[in-house]
Amino acid sequence: MPKILHTSDWHLGIESWIGSKSTDRLEELKVALNFLVEKAKEEKVDLILITGDVLHNRVSPRLEALNLLADILAKFASLAPTIVVLGNHDWQGLKAWKNLKVKNLFIVDEPVVEPLQIGNFNIFAIPYIDVQRLLEFHDNLARAKDFLNWFFEEVRQKINPYKLNIVAGHLMVEGSIESERENHIEVEIKTTVVPTGIDYVALGHIHHQGQLSVNPTVCYCGSPIIFDFGEEKESKGALIVDFEGSQKRILEIKTPCKKLKTFYLSDYSAKTIDKLSDELKSFEGYARLVFDAPESNEVRRYFMDNFECVRKVVFKNEYDSTSILTQIKKLDLLDMYKQFIKGRFEGFEDKMIQTVEEILKEVEEL
Amino acid sequence: MPKILHTSDWHLGIESWIGSKSTDRLEELKVALNFLVEKAKEEKVDLILITGDVLHNRVSPRLEALNLLADILAKFASLAPTIVVLGNHDWQGLKAWKNLKVKNLFIVDEPVVEPLQIGNFNIFAIPYIDVQRLLEFHDNLARAKDFLNWFFEEVRQKINPYKLNIVAGHLMVEGSIESERENHIEVEIKTTVVPTGIDYVALGHIHHQGQLSVNPTVCYCGSPIIFDFGEEKESKGALIVDFEGSQKRILEIKTPCKKLKTFYLSDYSAKTIDKLSDELKSFEGYARLVFDAPESNEVRRYFMDNFECVRKVVFKNEYDSTSILTQIKKLDLLDMYKQFIKGRFEGFEDKMIQTVEEILKEVEEL
Repeated sequence: MPKILHTSDWHLGIESWIGSKSTDRLEELKVALNFLVEKAKEEKVDLILITGDVLHNRVSPRLEALNLLADILAKFASLAPTIVVLGNHDWQGLKAWKNLKVKNLFIVDEPVVEPLQIGNFNIFAIPYIDVQRLLEFHDNLARAKDFLNWFFEEVRQKINPYKLNIVAGHLMVEGSIESERENHIEVEIKTTVVPTGIDYVALGHIHHQGQLSVNPTVCYCGSPIIFDFGEEKESKGALIVDFEGSQKRILEIKTPCKKLKTFYLSDYSAKTIDKLSDELKSFEGYARLVFDAPESNEVRRYFMDNFECVRKVVFKNEYDSTSILTQIKKLDLLDMYKQFIKGRFEGFEDKMIQTVEEILKEVEEL
Repeated sequence: MPKILHTSDWHLGIESWIGSKSTDRLEELKVALNFLVEKAKEEKVDLILITGDVLHNRVSPRLEALNLLADILAKFASLAPTIVVLGNHDWQGLKAWKNLKVKNLFIVDEPVVEPLQIGNFNIFAIPYIDVQRLLEFHDNLARAKDFLNWFFEEVRQKINPYKLNIVAGHLMVEGSIESERENHIEVEIKTTVVPTGIDYVALGHIHHQGQLSVNPTVCYCGSPIIFDFGEEKESKGALIVDFEGSQKRILEIKTPCKKLKTFYLSDYSAKTIDKLSDELKSFEGYARLVFDAPESNEVRRYFMDNFECVRKVVFKNEYDSTSILTQIKKLDLLDMYKQFIKGRFEGFEDKMIQTVEEILKEVEEL
């Protein structure tokens, strides 16, 4: 009964709520990941799949984050073959770790169509396809889509019927996220491109744990902790996939992590404030307060300063997404693109902006 | 007959002659280091000692440098136990590589007085003691010296008479460099502090290959390539130490590397220029031209633009060290300190300057 541990999107080094109440999440991640190491040991897993975004900062990651990452990867690799497929957040310096040839640790920074053959497993791996970076070299999004179609066609031809065939990738599946975020320039796949004969598709990128399709079996395992208030109701943790003959059982692993909660308040009358203060005193975790009332810096300061758990205080006007949409509509496409890439692609940004500018101009001229 | 390969001061990622004719040295280092890997294989060495400064940039090292470093270290570790003692240039992110627990690779980022026991060897290791960093925590240079004395006293007590006892360190030995550089704030040891019973002291920091003392046997193995014109006559490469009973043979390994040569010219008459041009045409390596004549931008441009090998053109006034000394004397101590630490200790610099300022003030008040 071969068993896989599937974990993803660790974002080591992330600091949440910068500008409001900056919070280093490394210690929480350390606890959650060491819990997964223990689980892998208890469950005697045969393979560990880590589907990307192990680090948060793709440029100059924090040393503490690198130290913890190396420590956890070494622990996993001492238990079972461990595959890390790089995500969009992952620092290119991890390629050097690959060169170190750590026993049982496979870092995948390029799409692999010649499957990794490890024990009972035949593994195809696909790191994040960065459309923004591809712009440098190729025409457009279509090229990336073609590439993904080609990739899955190659996979289909190399399926080994005597093994468990696994795809591990950091990518976006159509329909996997809420409509709000669908405007991203990202390549997406349909679950229907997965060829028959693939036993499990392990995905990372989306932080919400969930099974997207039963046949083929396609799962996002989710992040090990809750990063932000938008995700407070999502399932987090990791997955264990247990293959029993032609059957498989998917077990959700809940990692120990801090609770996040949004408190919705209709006003900030003395009564509301007293009641809320009592609740917050005994609340363990991170709290966001949303007041359906005009902005008050006094109220904000009171809660931010007196309650350790409060990370964000938001007022109706700021929270109202209609007003955000109005702001967005004021930006033109090029400005939005500039804001999006700012600080993400050092050295490439000017060239990227220039390319997009030219494309937009061509489109206008049509 | 146990054998050690001793190599050091790779400075991967270094670019030479920035501002004159910037030259990436990575490819040369790759050739030299792969040559050493082959040597280690041929000679069937039992231990590889790398005594620091494997990287050049202690902050944000280049990814290509990290990739090559990992590749070379993995090759060495596949041949024999490999010890890397960190130097003053080494990036703190190498600590994460230690956490990866690569088989046969030992990265030492803190002084080790509990010796590493590897086969026939009993190894004490001491990475660079950064006095500037110690200033943050301790009183002064004296503290660092005390530490080194304590270190060697510990070593003395832990010598194992049934093994080969080795010290591997990145540090400065008194009298090992030319007087010009002796004003550095650095801890130095005397070779006399090395306890009886130590069979070999492997050092890095100074790029010049040389044996400082026969009994105890103390050697700098030198850098694998020639980095600058000041070093053009120095021995470079690596050392193989071959222990035969109570005897040892020290073999100098010459690495393949580009030649550096300074051409001294008394003038830039047409005749001199013609003769020099002929010589430069057939010269393979990097050339520096020193004219004992007033500065001429025309002459400089002619040689810099027309001869690929020419990296630097210097005129008498610029080269005259007396005039440099005059410039230096115009700086006060604090300015010199500021210039020295600039860009080296991000985040710590203000605090360091403040500390030194306070110390200088105290001294003045005495």
